[in-house]
Amino acid sequence: MGDMLGLTVPFKQVDVFTFNPYKGNPVAVINLLDVEESSVSQEKLQAIATWTNLSETTFLFKPSENSGADYKLRILTPVNELPFAGHPTVGSCQAFIEFTGSAKKSFKQECIAGIVPLTVLEDGSIGFQAIRTSLIDLSDNEVESYQAKAMLGIDLIARPKLLDVGPAWVVLLVKDNKTCYDAEVDYSSLGELSKKFGHCGIILAGQDPSDEHKYEMRAFAPGEGVLEDPVCGSGSVALARYLQDHFNFNKSFHFVISQGGRLNRAGRISVQIEHSSDGAIKYHVSGKARALVSGTIAI
Amino acid sequence: MGDMLGLTVPFKQVDVFTFNPYKGNPVAVINLLDVEESSVSQEKLQAIATWTNLSETTFLFKPSENSGADYKLRILTPVNELPFAGHPTVGSCQAFIEFTGSAKKSFKQECIAGIVPLTVLEDGSIGFQAIRTSLIDLSDNEVESYQAKAMLGIDLIARPKLLDVGPAWVVLLVKDNKTCYDAEVDYSSLGELSKKFGHCGIILAGQDPSDEHKYEMRAFAPGEGVLEDPVCGSGSVALARYLQDHFNFNKSFHFVISQGGRLNRAGRISVQIEHSSDGAIKYHVSGKARALVSGTIAI
Repeated sequence: MGDMLGLTVPFKQVDVFTFNPYKGNPVAVINLLDVEESSVSQEKLQAIATWTNLSETTFLFKPSENSGADYKLRILTPVNELPFAGHPTVGSCQAFIEFTGSAKKSFKQECIAGIVPLTVLEDGSIGFQAIRTSLIDLSDNEVESYQAKAMLGIDLIARPKLLDVGPAWVVLLVKDNKTCYDAEVDYSSLGELSKKFGHCGIILAGQDPSDEHKYEMRAFAPGEGVLEDPVCGSGSVALARYLQDHFNFNKSFHFVISQGGRLNRAGRISVQIEHSSDGAIKYHVSGKARALVSGTIAI
Repeated sequence: MGDMLGLTVPFKQVDVFTFNPYKGNPVAVINLLDVEESSVSQEKLQAIATWTNLSETTFLFKPSENSGADYKLRILTPVNELPFAGHPTVGSCQAFIEFTGSAKKSFKQECIAGIVPLTVLEDGSIGFQAIRTSLIDLSDNEVESYQAKAMLGIDLIARPKLLDVGPAWVVLLVKDNKTCYDAEVDYSSLGELSKKFGHCGIILAGQDPSDEHKYEMRAFAPGEGVLEDPVCGSGSVALARYLQDHFNFNKSFHFVISQGGRLNRAGRISVQIEHSSDGAIKYHVSGKARALVSGTIAI
């Protein structure tokens, strides 16, 4: 492991889901499009992702044959590899565009979870369509445990549910955006509960009372070593699917998520719940991404 | 804060205190040597240091007039600015050399704590001389609190002391390197104790029974948001000063620290306790540093 591959490849660190530089969620993106995937060990990828210390580091590879994808993305946290993650997907697409100079407006990302469709919107935002949105009921014991131990005296306005969107988030809805912003959680208890039940963490959300299209959201995953994630793409998918279930929308619905204020960030995620004419419901998540660091990395 | 300065400046992320790439402690170094310090707000520096998510991000500025220094270094954690830190000092000197192409073998770093002398050694390692090594006795209450609450059943072989070397570390010596490597600490209790007593965290160390010149070391600072620091330069200064007090060396003594194994790192820090002919005792810390990421950052 101590050995270098002797390669120096393009590198970017991208700020995702914000209009204000340094106020979004960073992802490190390493361009291995010209490197044989088999020549880079899992150990090497993990060592790099541990070293960057970001919630996610991604590696762009050539797509698998016949996948129809523009690139293959491998997504690693400091401790393991993920099937999918939201802000790394948006940030890595932005990096791919800058690395390759592509003028395309739609892309397909191959990742462990499947093929994720991405679109460049008119304002330059990048959006992806969720490919996994499984809504799962929690047991009474699970619900009571989260309420009693992890949330310090916060009233929920609906029964929490588990959303498996790649990571498996427990979504909890509170009465308004301010309640969400002000909430204090017990990290130790939450971490223990998440591990016990095999969940990634919790998504807390509350609507702006003056605008049904605005939500405050927070994401906590102390069991994964992330006390509070500043801006969370997969969490926004989980929230969207939860709200569809909660409100039973019968037509398309759009909302905007603010996240990260408590961490001195200014995250903005745009979510579209799309009701197609054929009755299918699709979930789209988009936001701005900008590469703030550009250069090379020796691997 | 949302505004960019419209500047794109040189950037490096340097791996410090290891012979094996990606197995040391990273520091992000931003070259502002050509930028007026007054034109960059504290808020901007802090936003960048929060965003990189590294234990430290540093900013190189022109030195103050008449300081005699080669550069001024400002060192920020994700939450605040530090007077001094060890691995950022070594990594930033390496970055300065690469940024400027300097062939000098000795440098002076201006930082809040003072002027720190640095030397490039024959093997390319970079060393600094500690400018602050205050040994402070702990109260019985402090000692008992640390032993009872933070350390889970680990026997100490000497009374712990507080070492103010910039950060203020409590140094605890255990019987051997293996005991140190295997130790489990209670992060919650330790974090509470550190905050209560106003200490940065604890340095745990144990000698290799087969070689008095080898130590295993670990650094814990949960109160500062760092559960365990992979490789800690200031901690090695603290340990050196503690060992001088403990063994009362009457001549120069050299030892090598291994650190970070539990975190899948391979940190190596070289320490020289120098007894000058005039009776003065100086503490020198050195290690390898290599820039793994090189490029630019938009600020």
